[in-house]
Amino acid sequence: MKIIPVKGTRDFYPEPMRLRNWIIDAWRRVSLRNGFEEYDSPIFEYLDLFTIKSGDEIVSQLFSFTDRGGRSLAIRPEITPSLARMVNAKIHSLPRPIKWFSVPRVCRAERPQRGRLREFFQWNVDVIGSDSVLADAECIFVAADFLREVGLAADDVTVRIGSRALTTAVLGAAGVPADAFDAVLPVLDKRPKVTEDEFRKLAAQAGLSNEQVAAVERFQDAADLDQAAEAVGALEGTDQDLAVLRDLMATLDAMGAGAYCRLDLRIVRGLAYYTGIVYEIIAAGERAVAGGGRYDNLLEVLGGPKVGGTGFGMGDVVLGLLLKDKGKVPDDVLARRVDFFVVDDGEGTFAKVLEVVGALRRMGLTAEYSYKRQNVGKQLKAANRCQARHVVIVRPGAVAVKDMAAGEQKEMSLEAFLASPGGDG
Amino acid sequence: MKIIPVKGTRDFYPEPMRLRNWIIDAWRRVSLRNGFEEYDSPIFEYLDLFTIKSGDEIVSQLFSFTDRGGRSLAIRPEITPSLARMVNAKIHSLPRPIKWFSVPRVCRAERPQRGRLREFFQWNVDVIGSDSVLADAECIFVAADFLREVGLAADDVTVRIGSRALTTAVLGAAGVPADAFDAVLPVLDKRPKVTEDEFRKLAAQAGLSNEQVAAVERFQDAADLDQAAEAVGALEGTDQDLAVLRDLMATLDAMGAGAYCRLDLRIVRGLAYYTGIVYEIIAAGERAVAGGGRYDNLLEVLGGPKVGGTGFGMGDVVLGLLLKDKGKVPDDVLARRVDFFVVDDGEGTFAKVLEVVGALRRMGLTAEYSYKRQNVGKQLKAANRCQARHVVIVRPGAVAVKDMAAGEQKEMSLEAFLASPGGDG
Repeated sequence: MKIIPVKGTRDFYPEPMRLRNWIIDAWRRVSLRNGFEEYDSPIFEYLDLFTIKSGDEIVSQLFSFTDRGGRSLAIRPEITPSLARMVNAKIHSLPRPIKWFSVPRVCRAERPQRGRLREFFQWNVDVIGSDSVLADAECIFVAADFLREVGLAADDVTVRIGSRALTTAVLGAAGVPADAFDAVLPVLDKRPKVTEDEFRKLAAQAGLSNEQVAAVERFQDAADLDQAAEAVGALEGTDQDLAVLRDLMATLDAMGAGAYCRLDLRIVRGLAYYTGIVYEIIAAGERAVAGGGRYDNLLEVLGGPKVGGTGFGMGDVVLGLLLKDKGKVPDDVLARRVDFFVVDDGEGTFAKVLEVVGALRRMGLTAEYSYKRQNVGKQLKAANRCQARHVVIVRPGAVAVKDMAAGEQKEMSLEAFLASPGGDG
Repeated sequence: MKIIPVKGTRDFYPEPMRLRNWIIDAWRRVSLRNGFEEYDSPIFEYLDLFTIKSGDEIVSQLFSFTDRGGRSLAIRPEITPSLARMVNAKIHSLPRPIKWFSVPRVCRAERPQRGRLREFFQWNVDVIGSDSVLADAECIFVAADFLREVGLAADDVTVRIGSRALTTAVLGAAGVPADAFDAVLPVLDKRPKVTEDEFRKLAAQAGLSNEQVAAVERFQDAADLDQAAEAVGALEGTDQDLAVLRDLMATLDAMGAGAYCRLDLRIVRGLAYYTGIVYEIIAAGERAVAGGGRYDNLLEVLGGPKVGGTGFGMGDVVLGLLLKDKGKVPDDVLARRVDFFVVDDGEGTFAKVLEVVGALRRMGLTAEYSYKRQNVGKQLKAANRCQARHVVIVRPGAVAVKDMAAGEQKEMSLEAFLASPGGDG
């Protein structure tokens, strides 16, 4: 009986696995040097954890199930609710700000398409317990630091920064009632992705008048903070929201990440829980690589104190496509690495081959040999198949070490070789 | 509303996360230097994949669910069926032997207890496509190489090696019918874990006569291969099985792992699919850290050709307890690492602090600073809280760099510092 993988999931054979590890290692390295500590949550949680925050409509996107004890559980579709749960449980003993990152595997019961799968890995970077715009800047800096780390330049991909707070202020001033925001914001979020006609149709369906649409568009199309201030006018509290954006940009400039960042007030994000700065990392072709923002009520909604947070998520699927398209994945990342292939010469040296293989591995070098007792030529072919850098031919009383790239071969005693095997290890 | 994690799952706060990463990094490092390539499968598969191999009784140990398309799916309780599925799908293009490892997260709907959780990580190391005993030796060598790598010695933990092939030969010779083996083998597997009385009771329940029990015990209690040969007698095919064990031991000796390995014919393993050599890694207190063996029919059962495999699995839970009990986890593994904490002196140097933080991070060094503009004393306290190794105080025109362990402080220009920040990075 043949069994296939479930559609929308991936089998990671060694080559795609090396790409995945290369991405995740870079996520980890960059997170750590930016002072973030890694955490993780269980792959499944009580279903309630996900519905409380995002409402019942998310249930259709969840893989949920009932265990033998009758508990309603679900595989995590994102890690932010679990993060809030974990922080809430230790809120009084964790020193703040809490700077944490994670690389969870998450699953969503979506229809699979290019760039969107039912199972993927999502880098999450969050600062909890600071209201300072420096915390928002910190997260955006980490994202930019990663883009630079993997060779993506500011003309490949940019962080586009908007303000949920200013957007809702403009909506309010235009007469859109606060209880309509949850329906209107996802429509505004779609604006950069659809035609102007489609947007106006969606806006009308969400109950926006032509005047309201015009007011929002005037604000969203502001090219800089001065134009944004003009569009917003003299609304209560917006001075502070504008100042936050100004500080954010200045901080990112001072830290050396300004080139990657630009104001784009069309960014509002779809999720309900954002309260302040929001941003998306967009690559050529309007592909969103990451998104995030400030959420100041989430911990409270999940039974904790009113402690604010800010952060972003970046999936591995669109990112992986982008890195491949731009030729940013180094060849040696995808190749297998074998330092030594050890060969016996047929003169009774096989026990020595085993000894050499064991010794090299204990030194941390990758060593291979053939399970079949074959002639030297066949063993060399096997060495080539696994792209070994060096071949060691074990003869009675000596070894010959061949550098496969340079084609050079040296003879030496076994002891001399094991004392300093080299191998670029 | 307070939500708790599901019983039997773990929240990985930063400290336990660092322990988990330390273990998994060692698993990866040791696998790679032994010439194994990493793979991974989806976290969920079609339910059939797990029931075909292990029978319907495994369903009660599975977290299974139905997706919106009506498909019966389950979270993987182990990765071996997915491995067999993946290898079968590319069996004609993969060069053999296939040496692969994985570190899957797996979930089992078991009753949680000490050392047994409903979600854990399991290192899997397998060689597929070789009938040679060298492939079995390779896997056992990898396990021993890991034990040594994390500081566990041969008196902490041993690999106990048995033979499913010899065990079933002895059972057959004693008159136990082949179709009773699936019921009898799990009873033999329990023998080292229960009292002699309990074992005899279980054996009787499985249909073994006193004479059959005595024959099995005589074989299982053989102290070496000569005694085992004597207990087995002149049964067909057993010469070869005994020779395989002899070769295995000689190979492990030659590779330098003999000290960790010993014959223990009481080891039979519970799972039905083992066909040859079987082994368990047992720590003091009879705690099983890992188990494995040869399976020569599994790929065929899952719709592939008759290609044999051999390998083992090692979970992170019992291993983690053992490493802690034995004091083998280095202190610095559990501690946070911050190279530099950058402080402003209140004389308008904060923009320079941001610049220094950004520059250090881009160099790969971990740099932190306080989001609050506080006096130098409070910032130094924050530096201590995150265990920073160095503090950099940014003054107009110069920096003071303090080594927190040595207590030494040096003044230099900002340029000189950034040209060579040190930091033991």
